[in-house]
Amino acid sequence: MPISEFDLIRQYFADATASRHDVLLGIGDDCALLQPPAGAALAVSMDTLVEGRHFLPGSDPESLGHKALAVNLSDLAAMGADPAWATLALTLPGADTAWLGAFMRGFAALAAEYGVQLVGGDTTRGPLSITVQVHGFVDPDSALKRGGGKAGDLLFLSGSIGDAGLALLRAQGAAPSDAEDGHLRERLDRPIPRVTLGRLLAGRASAAIDVSDGLIADLEHVCTASVTGARVNLSSLPLSPAVATECARGNWQPALSGGDDYELLFSISPERVESLLSICLEAGQQIKEIGCLVADSGIVLVYPDGRPSEEIPHGFDHFRT
Amino acid sequence: MPISEFDLIRQYFADATASRHDVLLGIGDDCALLQPPAGAALAVSMDTLVEGRHFLPGSDPESLGHKALAVNLSDLAAMGADPAWATLALTLPGADTAWLGAFMRGFAALAAEYGVQLVGGDTTRGPLSITVQVHGFVDPDSALKRGGGKAGDLLFLSGSIGDAGLALLRAQGAAPSDAEDGHLRERLDRPIPRVTLGRLLAGRASAAIDVSDGLIADLEHVCTASVTGARVNLSSLPLSPAVATECARGNWQPALSGGDDYELLFSISPERVESLLSICLEAGQQIKEIGCLVADSGIVLVYPDGRPSEEIPHGFDHFRT
Repeated sequence: MPISEFDLIRQYFADATASRHDVLLGIGDDCALLQPPAGAALAVSMDTLVEGRHFLPGSDPESLGHKALAVNLSDLAAMGADPAWATLALTLPGADTAWLGAFMRGFAALAAEYGVQLVGGDTTRGPLSITVQVHGFVDPDSALKRGGGKAGDLLFLSGSIGDAGLALLRAQGAAPSDAEDGHLRERLDRPIPRVTLGRLLAGRASAAIDVSDGLIADLEHVCTASVTGARVNLSSLPLSPAVATECARGNWQPALSGGDDYELLFSISPERVESLLSICLEAGQQIKEIGCLVADSGIVLVYPDGRPSEEIPHGFDHFRT
Repeated sequence: MPISEFDLIRQYFADATASRHDVLLGIGDDCALLQPPAGAALAVSMDTLVEGRHFLPGSDPESLGHKALAVNLSDLAAMGADPAWATLALTLPGADTAWLGAFMRGFAALAAEYGVQLVGGDTTRGPLSITVQVHGFVDPDSALKRGGGKAGDLLFLSGSIGDAGLALLRAQGAAPSDAEDGHLRERLDRPIPRVTLGRLLAGRASAAIDVSDGLIADLEHVCTASVTGARVNLSSLPLSPAVATECARGNWQPALSGGDDYELLFSISPERVESLLSICLEAGQQIKEIGCLVADSGIVLVYPDGRPSEEIPHGFDHFRT
């Protein structure tokens, strides 16, 4: 049997990322053999990106390589886990080595940043689709679950919210362009997984989630799992100038329902806040208080412009497009 | 946000398979949290099945559910690992609950047989494609690698070989049908992962692989990794009556290159053979000696009909279609 193009691709993967001591056997056998640390729980998450659904045909492959790993690392961050290993199932229309080289550059650069080794996967021919599974470690008692929030806990967001959603609106021609386009597009195409912040939150925050579906939708997931409602002060949302301008125009959709920002949304008991704020300040991690969890179900939005506050009933998001 | 069809699908997955004590947190959070046993290595393998490439459009979904898990469990078997957890990335053209119900019946029935719990994954919309990752445990010193074979080790095969390949030829109209069609088709659509045999081989066999690409191609993988050649007595191959008839007609392709049988091919040092044979007899595991590893590279086939033996140079398989 001659070595196929896809065999060559597999060889390409073998050296793409760093070597870890806890990888006993990497790419090239029937299984990878991995050595999890004693006492830690293994955290795993799997996400698929499908062409035409999660990214446009013709998207930059290097950004795709970054994003396919980033959205998974973001799930580890939301559990407070340390990233370790990744597997990659790549379905490609053909053996396009230029595309693959660029894809793996994006993937490997982010993997190197977090010490992640690619240990296995599968390469098949078919419509373009990328499935990544990440594996990390976390003390099971410190892991950040969605359901640990309590009424009275304060709500925080990392970074800023709405940039990716606004980038998408602009790409679709549904919002006017300006000098901020490049920054917003970078936020959509190359999200930064908040792994460092997640590690700091482990054992401190009461609940956490990464904002992939949109702030309200993901806050709902936390409220449902925690059996609480929430109150959000919209004047406190961390916004880039472009998104702030959009909100001032009355368009809250990117900030509240845009999704794809991969910021961390978390709750924390009030007596732990001061200590967390100083830890985050020291570590250069930007977080902002945006509201609190409440006993009554539903999400109450308090507008900054004096408009009466609005209650979003459970399971309904009228900002969603 | 109304509950989407795909949210319902996720809920469906949550109870599909058995509950394991080592699953600290299953489907429904940012990650699953798993507790690997102390001292064991974690064995992981990931395989994708794409419609039109690995199965025909309109294939029976229950068989697909079985096969998607089976081909992955087969990789664990080939390492000698105990199956534990699975993740599933399912890309579907639409939310067809009848299709999904049947798919999960096939998946869950096989999962139950081996005590496997589905712990996470992703459901997306797009061209039909199924990626499964399995996770198992194995003593790292007993794991069956491809590269452990030595010249002089005997070669064995489990079950019988060529059935799936012949089923495919018949489905394509390239071989005549007969009363064996149903049996052969079952072998193609519902392969049995040789997990029980793999466990028995761990610490005993010197090298192992599951036959997915075809006997010669997979034997080549073992020879390459073990830096040996091999000699195969074709009169010793374990064949069903239908495949034996095909070979007697001179068509060795299904037996030698058919693939998709998911039998185990393994090597073992001669002094360990007697003990293994009695263990397998007691456990009801059928294995058959088919040849041996040799020092010279290349694979030598010894024909049963008095034809001169044939040497297949490294990297070449003229039976492959």
